[in-house]
Order: sequence, then C-alpha cells, then structure tokens
Amino acid sequence: MTYDESLARRRRLMPGLRLSFDHPLRIVSGEGVWLTDADGVRYLDAYNNVAHVGHGRPEVVEAIARQASILNTNTRYLVDGVLDYAERVAGMLPDPLEVVWFANSGSEANDLAWRIARTVTGREGMIVTRHAYHGSTHLTMATSPEELGIERLPSWVSTVDPPDGPAMPSIGGAIDTLAEAGHLPAAFACDTVFSSDGIFEPPPGWLATAAAAVRAAGGLFVADEVQAGFGRVGPRMWGFAGAGVVPDIVTLGKPMGNGHPVAAVVTTRAIADAFRAEGYYFSTFAGNPVAAAAGMAVLDVMEAESLTERASRIGALLREELTARIPAIRRVRGPGLFIGVDLGDGGSARRMVEGMKEQRVLVGRTGRRGEVVKIRPPLVFGEEHAAILLDAFDAVAQSPGSGSSSSM
Amino acid sequence: MTYDESLARRRRLMPGLRLSFDHPLRIVSGEGVWLTDADGVRYLDAYNNVAHVGHGRPEVVEAIARQASILNTNTRYLVDGVLDYAERVAGMLPDPLEVVWFANSGSEANDLAWRIARTVTGREGMIVTRHAYHGSTHLTMATSPEELGIERLPSWVSTVDPPDGPAMPSIGGAIDTLAEAGHLPAAFACDTVFSSDGIFEPPPGWLATAAAAVRAAGGLFVADEVQAGFGRVGPRMWGFAGAGVVPDIVTLGKPMGNGHPVAAVVTTRAIADAFRAEGYYFSTFAGNPVAAAAGMAVLDVMEAESLTERASRIGALLREELTARIPAIRRVRGPGLFIGVDLGDGGSARRMVEGMKEQRVLVGRTGRRGEVVKIRPPLVFGEEHAAILLDAFDAVAQSPGSGSSSSM
Repeated sequence: MTYDESLARRRRLMPGLRLSFDHPLRIVSGEGVWLTDADGVRYLDAYNNVAHVGHGRPEVVEAIARQASILNTNTRYLVDGVLDYAERVAGMLPDPLEVVWFANSGSEANDLAWRIARTVTGREGMIVTRHAYHGSTHLTMATSPEELGIERLPSWVSTVDPPDGPAMPSIGGAIDTLAEAGHLPAAFACDTVFSSDGIFEPPPGWLATAAAAVRAAGGLFVADEVQAGFGRVGPRMWGFAGAGVVPDIVTLGKPMGNGHPVAAVVTTRAIADAFRAEGYYFSTFAGNPVAAAAGMAVLDVMEAESLTERASRIGALLREELTARIPAIRRVRGPGLFIGVDLGDGGSARRMVEGMKEQRVLVGRTGRRGEVVKIRPPLVFGEEHAAILLDAFDAVAQSPGSGSSSSM
Repeated sequence: MTYDESLARRRRLMPGLRLSFDHPLRIVSGEGVWLTDADGVRYLDAYNNVAHVGHGRPEVVEAIARQASILNTNTRYLVDGVLDYAERVAGMLPDPLEVVWFANSGSEANDLAWRIARTVTGREGMIVTRHAYHGSTHLTMATSPEELGIERLPSWVSTVDPPDGPAMPSIGGAIDTLAEAGHLPAAFACDTVFSSDGIFEPPPGWLATAAAAVRAAGGLFVADEVQAGFGRVGPRMWGFAGAGVVPDIVTLGKPMGNGHPVAAVVTTRAIADAFRAEGYYFSTFAGNPVAAAAGMAVLDVMEAESLTERASRIGALLREELTARIPAIRRVRGPGLFIGVDLGDGGSARRMVEGMKEQRVLVGRTGRRGEVVKIRPPLVFGEEHAAILLDAFDAVAQSPGSGSSSSM
C-alpha cells in the first residue's frame, strides 16, 4: 500500500481524527528516542511524553508480556501486584493523598476527579485556566476551552488566565463569574505545567494562593498531573511539588505505562469516603495486573536511571541554549523536560515545527495562538539528542523561507 | 502477606471499590477458563467475558509483546496495523456503519457515542432501559440507573422497561416523559443483551420498533454492544443482528483485547461528518498499535476456533440443562453464552453465587433485585466445563441450607 493509499484509508476509516504535520508521518517502529517511518527514515522524537522511558523499552515490554501471560483480570478480585503499584504511587505523593483509584486514561481520571469534587462539595462549578485541556469525555471536554472554544463553555465553567509573566492572575474573578451565573465552585483544576495554555512555571506562591482562594470559597484544588507528573518537571516529581500546597485530588496518566493505558486519581481518605457515600466507580480494565506491571517497570527504570534528575539536567541545557538563541524574557519557558519556545505567532511556530520535521526532529505546538513550540521528549533524551535538536532548530531559524527569524 | 493483610491493604488503598463474593478471591494466575487463587485452588471461570478467548491466551500475549517491542504510539501518526484492525472491525458490521473511532473502555466509547448523538441531533435527552448500566464517566453514569438509582436520574434521562416477557414495552412513554420535562430525545441507547436489567432476548421486532420510534422523534438508535458484541450471543456476532435494524451508532468494548484496554465507537459517515463539524475527539492511548494487535489476535483466534458457533452450541446446552432444572418459562434466559437464571429473589441468587463459588465455579448476579444468576464465561468454555458448572449448580440447589430450592 502506498503512502497516499494509507492516508486515504485513514481518512475514510477515522475521519476527523487529527494527524500531526502537513504531511503526516507513517510510522512503523520506535526505539528509545527514535521513531522510524515506512521509508526507513529515522526521526528524533522530542515530542512524545507517553514513551516516558523510551519507545519499545524492553523492561516495560517484558513486564507487560510476563504479566499478561500470568493474569490479566479486573479489580473485583484481590491481586497483590495491583496493590503493590497503588502503594508505590501513593507513596510518591505527600500525605494525606493516600487513596488510589485507577482509570484507563487521563480523560477518565479527570472525569472521575470532577465527579468526586462535585459530589463531595455538592456544587457544579469548575474553574480552569483560559486555554486548558483536560480530556475528551463529555464532562472534561466541557472544561477544555482549548478544544471546545471559550465561547462554548457552559455557565458552570469559568476561567482564570495562566500565570504568564510576573503578575499573579487571581481566581477571585472566576469565582465571581461563576456566582453571577448562579454557581458555586466545586473545584479549581489546574494542569500544573499549563501545557495547552503555552507552558508556564507559575510564580512562587501562585498555586498555593489559588488553592487557598478556591478552598475559602468551598471548593477543592485538583492538580491535573497527567502532563507534568512522574518526573517530567525534574528535579521535581510533580508540577505542584514545592508550590507550598498539597492538592485535594491529583490526577495521573500519560507516562505511567509508557504507552500502556494506565491512569489514576489519588485523593485523601476523607474525600474518598465522602464520595463513596454518594458516588459509584468501577472500571473493567483499569487497575488490572498488566497495567500495574507496566507502571512498576516504568518506575523501576526511572529510579535506576535517575530520569527525574536527567530531565532536570537536559531541560536546563536545552533552555539555556534556546534562550541564547531567543533572548527575550519568558520566550523559553517551562520546567524540566517540558519546554515551550514562544515564537510570538502561530505562523512562525508552525513553520518551525514543520521545518524541524524536515530536519527529522519531531516537536509540537501549543498556546492560545499556537505560538509556542512544544518540546517534550521521552525522559531518556540525552545531551547528544539535545545537540541534534538544537542543530535542527538553528537550521530552520536560519533558513530564509522559515519566516521565524522575524519573530526572534 | 496473609490474606487478611492483603484485604486490609486493598480496603485502605482503594476504599469503596467493590470486590466480588463475601470472601473475596485473591487471584494469582489464569489460564483458559480457570483462575487460581493464592492457595493454589482452581476456580472454573464462568463469569469473565473480558477474557474472551481465555485467560492468558498465548496468541494474544504474543501479539501484544511483539507489537509493544516494535511500536506503541498514538493516532497522530499513520500506522497501518491500526487501520487494518479498524477496517476489520468495520467489515464485521453492516453498512452504512463504516467509521471507527477507538477508545480505551466501554465507558469512554459510550460517553463519546452519547456526545455524538447529542451533537448531531442538537438535543440532550437520552432513553435507556429501566436498570441499564452504560459506564462510569459522568455522562454515562447519569444514564446508568443500575448504579445511580432511578430516582437520581437527571430530567433529560427517561427509561423504558426491558422486554421481559411477551409484551412489548414501548419507548413512546419514555419519549413523552422527556417531553414533559422539556427535552427531546437525542438517542435511545440499548445494551442489546440487557445484562444489568436481568438478561433478556427481545421479542422479534422489539429493537426495530424501538429504533423506529426514537428515529420518528428525531433521535438516534445506539446499540451498546460492549457486553453482547463479538460473538458472545452466538450464532450471532452482535446483539442487534437479526433484529431487522441497523443502529446509527454501535459501541464496543470488553472482549476486544482479551483484557487489554480496547473499545470503539462505530458509526455512519453522515453522523461522523455531522459530529466533526462541532465536536472534537482524541485519545492519547486509544487505537494505539498494541491495542490493534491485541484486537487482531482475538479475532484470529475467534475465527480459527469458530468461537461464535461454539458460544451458540455451549449456550444452548447450558440453557437446556438449566431449564430442565428450573422449568418455569423465562427463568433461564439469554442468547449464546450470556445466560441468566432467574431465581426470583436476590437472596436465592446470592446463595447460589456464593454456593457455586464454594464449589469452585465462578458466576455472578444481575437484575433489578439481584435475582438473576449471570453466566458469562470466556468463549472457550466447552462441554466438559458446562458439566462442571451444572454439577456445582445441582450441589448448591440440593443443599438444605441454600434456600434456593424454595424458588425453583
């Protein structure tokens, strides 16, 4: 089948499902930080955070294969390996976060977290950031202005600007907006790396202040760590770490199983008990022994290779080198290996992303105007890969047709 | 760790997540139709429909391991294996069902299906059966009276009785109820094996009549095949097959990946196009190459071993033998290998389920009063397994303390 036939087939079978790049990639294999297309061309993957410990990582593949051959069933039975993993995840989070309910995706985890917040507070209102994305279920999509469009948000959703700059946007206005629409806040939910808003590190105290404000108004603080969590923002393990606040609920997802569907909601015993009294949750697939084995293998590799520290080191290197190229304040942002390069307008960022792909380096775009180049590689990304990425960035920035030089 | 310690740990880490049986099983391995506990005791699994082609099925494990080592990434890229699987699934469904959007669970598939129905009709109302279960997301839980409780259903949900008996409950009343609450129907969604309602085979024409009624009122007909689909109701492949109607949307899940999280929404091009104009969908994990490989392997085994025919044959044998034990009309029900034994009251069914477990045969319960014993084994269940199940049933029915004899 030719490339054109494959693309036509995809558009016929799965219309509307967005593909990356003007000329989408037909990928056949992956290894470490590399993806290979059907013509044998290798691309440096500086985008896929799901392959946390590297594409095709043997330790994870072996753990999945071993457990799948032994047992894969649901949480209606006691299975010790599942409890081992739940305990390990809970142990990575501060007290009093100690209850772990597994899900199959970040969308499911957020959907459950929103349900919990609404059930235990008896309110409907949700506060999210201006260009947030929290998932593709009905409930989470209603709180995802990035895809839904801010004008289509229901009346029980209000937004706060992301902390873009030294100012401290207050969620007080969002609470007031909800009140005017007749709603009280169930929760302020925050992607702690602001990945769809454009990638920001909040000023010290911002998360704690926002959490205090929503709690004072009777709501919960939910940290959506689906993007930031598990060492991506090294040297911290979590986006909220060091922010001076422990969330009421934390949601986890993308990197947990290195591609195997694993996600979770972690909360306090008090909140879990309040939810249980009113709310039901069960998932046929979630928290099965294979998911737990995959999750355990990912954590083992992370520890053995100090990947959180590595994310910190390589992230700092990339930020320093990119900042040297684009000196304006706040144009190179983000913690650890979650880096945003703000090129000022969507056209420039788009040309950079497409141009780097021609240089065989994969990155993405984010931000309200698609103006931010998103760099978010597997955590096994090393100095040698950073050098390739920077060379590709330079080649595109210096090419006359790129147009991106005008914004630098 | 002792059993009691494991149970205490589970209740501490995952409070509220329901376990099966009074004395929950601590399972360590599975093979074919057998599950083995931590004491080495083997149980005949006549309950778990997810392990469609048998626990630990080597062909599926190998397919997962092989693909996970080669490539596991998302649908932002063209991956031929994913398209092969989508095409195969679409090819198993009648025209004009031809668009396949993957999800990670039946809950996600139903959530998306409801979203699609609401978006393309511009309505909110949902009609479901009296004791339906459609999932654990916010939206699907709102349409799951089994868990939510019928008194807590929102005003945009109304119910129709399941087709229990020769009478034909009409959805006209449910449409009227919605209208009185100010809602028009977006869809009638129906689990085509009525698994939570108590397991029924609808009288000929019932599904077609219901679908025609909701369509006449401007809504869609959604067949929830998460339980019934993929040959469980052999000799038919789908619960709606032979009912004289092609659904507007079909949702799929549980058995697709033999335990690996795989689910899908299948719909028509016209509906997909109408949804795309307004609605966004993407899932990081769904439709990844490993899910497709698992799904393909399951279908290969099903075909090689004629499991749909086998479900028909073993199901007929079980129904015949069980009916000989419990002669009243409609007390032994259900198509293929989805069998309900209505014991008339929850206490009797509970004693049967717990008693059969003591006999080392696993079955479950369903129905509005938990009065129906649910028999739903992996499709590789054979005559020799049916004989073990029937012996266990007899042993419990004849035991003086079982109490179930009074209801027979």
